[in-house]
Amino acid sequence: MSTAGQVIRCRAAVAWEAGKPLVIEEVEVAPPQANEVRLKILYTSLCHSDVYFWEAKGQTPLFPRIYGHEAGGIVESVGEGVTDLAPGDHVLPVFTGECKECVHCKSEESNMCSLLRINTDRGVMLNDGKSRFSINGKPIYHFLGTSTFSEYTVVHVGCVAKINPLAPLEKVCVLSCGISTGLGATLNVAKPPKGSTVAVFGLGAVGLAAAEGARLSGASRIIGVDVNPKRFEEGKWSSPMKNFVFEHHCSYVLQWKLKTEMGFSLLVISTAKKFGCTEFVNPKDHNRPVQEVLAEMTDGGVDRSVECTGNVDAMISAFESVHDGWGVAVLVGVPHKDAVFKTHPMNLLNERTLKGTFFGNYKPRSDLPSLVEKYMNKELEVEKFITHQVSFSEINKAFDYMLKGEGLRCIIRMDG
Amino acid sequence: MSTAGQVIRCRAAVAWEAGKPLVIEEVEVAPPQANEVRLKILYTSLCHSDVYFWEAKGQTPLFPRIYGHEAGGIVESVGEGVTDLAPGDHVLPVFTGECKECVHCKSEESNMCSLLRINTDRGVMLNDGKSRFSINGKPIYHFLGTSTFSEYTVVHVGCVAKINPLAPLEKVCVLSCGISTGLGATLNVAKPPKGSTVAVFGLGAVGLAAAEGARLSGASRIIGVDVNPKRFEEGKWSSPMKNFVFEHHCSYVLQWKLKTEMGFSLLVISTAKKFGCTEFVNPKDHNRPVQEVLAEMTDGGVDRSVECTGNVDAMISAFESVHDGWGVAVLVGVPHKDAVFKTHPMNLLNERTLKGTFFGNYKPRSDLPSLVEKYMNKELEVEKFITHQVSFSEINKAFDYMLKGEGLRCIIRMDG
Repeated sequence: MSTAGQVIRCRAAVAWEAGKPLVIEEVEVAPPQANEVRLKILYTSLCHSDVYFWEAKGQTPLFPRIYGHEAGGIVESVGEGVTDLAPGDHVLPVFTGECKECVHCKSEESNMCSLLRINTDRGVMLNDGKSRFSINGKPIYHFLGTSTFSEYTVVHVGCVAKINPLAPLEKVCVLSCGISTGLGATLNVAKPPKGSTVAVFGLGAVGLAAAEGARLSGASRIIGVDVNPKRFEEGKWSSPMKNFVFEHHCSYVLQWKLKTEMGFSLLVISTAKKFGCTEFVNPKDHNRPVQEVLAEMTDGGVDRSVECTGNVDAMISAFESVHDGWGVAVLVGVPHKDAVFKTHPMNLLNERTLKGTFFGNYKPRSDLPSLVEKYMNKELEVEKFITHQVSFSEINKAFDYMLKGEGLRCIIRMDG
Repeated sequence: MSTAGQVIRCRAAVAWEAGKPLVIEEVEVAPPQANEVRLKILYTSLCHSDVYFWEAKGQTPLFPRIYGHEAGGIVESVGEGVTDLAPGDHVLPVFTGECKECVHCKSEESNMCSLLRINTDRGVMLNDGKSRFSINGKPIYHFLGTSTFSEYTVVHVGCVAKINPLAPLEKVCVLSCGISTGLGATLNVAKPPKGSTVAVFGLGAVGLAAAEGARLSGASRIIGVDVNPKRFEEGKWSSPMKNFVFEHHCSYVLQWKLKTEMGFSLLVISTAKKFGCTEFVNPKDHNRPVQEVLAEMTDGGVDRSVECTGNVDAMISAFESVHDGWGVAVLVGVPHKDAVFKTHPMNLLNERTLKGTFFGNYKPRSDLPSLVEKYMNKELEVEKFITHQVSFSEINKAFDYMLKGEGLRCIIRMDG
C-alpha cells in the first residue's frame, strides 16, 4: 500500500535539549512538497558535526531537532516537479546541495551551490520555511536539510545523490559526508603527484580518508600528525574491530621511539598502512614547531599537507610544513568563528599554495555516484572506516563512542 | 684584440653610500672564474629593487656597491667549465639563477634554485667569496649577482639567459626582472580563464605587466586597484612619453566619477587599454574595504587577483576580493620583514586559493628565451613599459624619475 501523499508515522531520535541523550519518539513526517523527496533511511552514521551541533556550544541552539546527515536510504515518494528521482531509487542524502542552475553549480570548480549550500542555522525546509516533522502537531526542527536520525525524512531533491542500487547502503552511507570530505581534499584539491610526500593533520575519519586519498594518488610517504595519543592506542576500538589497531608493534623508522607508557608513539604500521600512513608525528613529543620537525624529516618540507582538525594553529603548521617552490596545503577542518589564520607573507611568496575545500570539492549529485562506483570497483575501501555498529534504539551509544574518541564511524541500523 | 683573461678597465656607476647619487668611476673588472661569464652590458634599466637596496632602509648596508639587475648584454668571455655560452652570445643577466641540478630546478613547478636563488645580502661571487670589481685594489661589492650598472660585469653562468641575437636589447632588457615578474604572475600562476575578471593591485610596472598578462589570457574585465593618484595623472611622464597617459578622458563605467581635482579617478581608457585594464578603483575613494567594493562590482568577487604592491593590507584585500568557490589570489609584491598576513580561515575553506610567486615562476635560463620570442612574434609588447631613456652618465636621473613615481621603466644606454 503506497504511503505517497500521506503523513507517515515512524520512529525518530529527537534531541530535546542541547547535550542531553536523544529520545526515540514517534514522529509524523509530512509528504514532500515541490522539489522535495521523502526518503526511507536504512542506515545512518554519526559524524562529528552532529555531535558538535547537538552540544550547541557557541551556536544558536535550535531544539527540539532531529540530527543526522550521513546516511543511505531509498526514495519513498517524490514531490511536485521532481523528475530526477523516483520511488525505489537508492540514494545518499547530503548536507549540502547542488541545484545545477546557480553560478557555483555551473562552475567546473565550485561545489558551493548558492541555493543549497550548507546552512547549520536553518531548521526548516526552503520551500515554505516550515518543518516536515512534528509530534502532536508541534514542529521538530530539521538539521542540515537531512535529519537522517529518523526512519523517514524529507530532503530537497538537490541534496540527494542517486547511486547504484547494488551498492550496500550500510557501507556506502559513510560516503555522504566525512569520508568523501577527506578523500576529495586529497584527490580533488591537494592532488599529490605520484611518489610525493603528504602530511595529514588530524587522524579522525576525515584525516584518515585524506590519507587514503594520498595512498590512492601514489604518494610514497604519508605522515600522520595528531596530538591525541588515543589515535594509536591498543584496544580502544571495541568489537567488532578489537585488535584491529594493534596487530603489530612497529619496527620503525627515523628514531621515533615506541613509548607504550607515554601515550603517543605506538606506531602501528599494520593499521597505518590500511589508511595509507607510513609515519607518525605527535607535535607534543617535540619542543619545537611541528613544521620544523616535518621539514627535517623531509629535507625542506612535505609536497602536500591536508589539515583536518579545524584548529587554527594546526592550520598554520600545515601550511608552513609544505616545501617552498611547489608545496600545497589544503584546509579541511572547520575553524572556530573567531580564529585568525596568520603567517608571514614570505611563506607564500616562496611559492607555496594555500587552499581550502568544502566537502572535498565533490558536487553532491554529480560526483557521489561515481565515488560509489569506485567502491563497487574495489578501487576504494570504506569498510576500514566502520569501527562500530549499533541498532537505532541504541543511538546514544554512537554518541558515547564519538565523545570518547573511540573508533571512526559507527553505523546505526534503522531497523533495530 | 681579445680582452679574454685580462682585467678590463671600464666605467661603472658606484654607490658609495646609502641614498647618495651614484658616481661614474673607472673600475677594474676581473676575468670570469669557473662557471662565470663576463658580459658587456649594452642597456640596463632601473627597477624598484635597485632603489630599495640603494636606500638601504632596514637592510644591512653593503657599500661601496654596483647596483643594477635589469639588463641586456653580450658575452665578452667565459670562465672554465662554461659550455652553454660563448663570446658574442646575446644575453639577459638575471637576479636569480637556475643551476639545472638542484631539487628546485628539477621540479617542473619551482624556479627557486637552491644554489642561485636571489640573495640580497651577498656582495661577492659564489666561487671564491670575492668581488670581481675593484678600484685601485679596493673591492666594490656586487648586487644580486648581476651589477649591471657597469660597462662590464661578471655573472654566474646560471644567472644568464641566452636569447635570440636578433632581439633588440634596448627593449627586451626589461624582461630580465619586473615585466616578467608581473606577466608570469598572471600567465603562469593566476592563469585566468578566458572571459574572467581579474583585479590587479598596484599599477607600477609589475602590476601593469600583470594586467598585460590578464589581457593576453583573454580576461574580459581587468580592474586596476591603486591608492596612488599619480598612476593616472596627466603629464607626469616626461618626454618621450609626454601625453602618453592622457590621450583621452574616460566616458566610463559603473559611476566611477571623474574627479580631476581630487587626485584619483582620472580614468584614462586609452592608456588603460594598452595595459589591459578596463576599470579602476582607488581604495581611498571608498569608506569601506576595497574587497567589498570589488565584490559589489563583480557579483561576489573577482575570479583572479594579483597583488603587486607588497603592502600586507593590500595582500589581504587582494585575497579577500576573490570569489568563493574558485577564486585565486596571487601575491607578487615583497612585504616588509615584520608583515603578518591575516585572514579568517573560512575565507580559505570557502574554496579560495592563495598563492605566491617569485619572478613570475619563470625559470631564468629555460623560460626567458621563449618570452623574448613572444616579443619577436609580436604576441607581447614591451615598448609600452619604457617611458624614459637616459645615457649612462645621467643614471641618477633614472633614480629621480623612480623616486618621484614618474613613468614605468627608464632605459639606461651604456654607451652614453
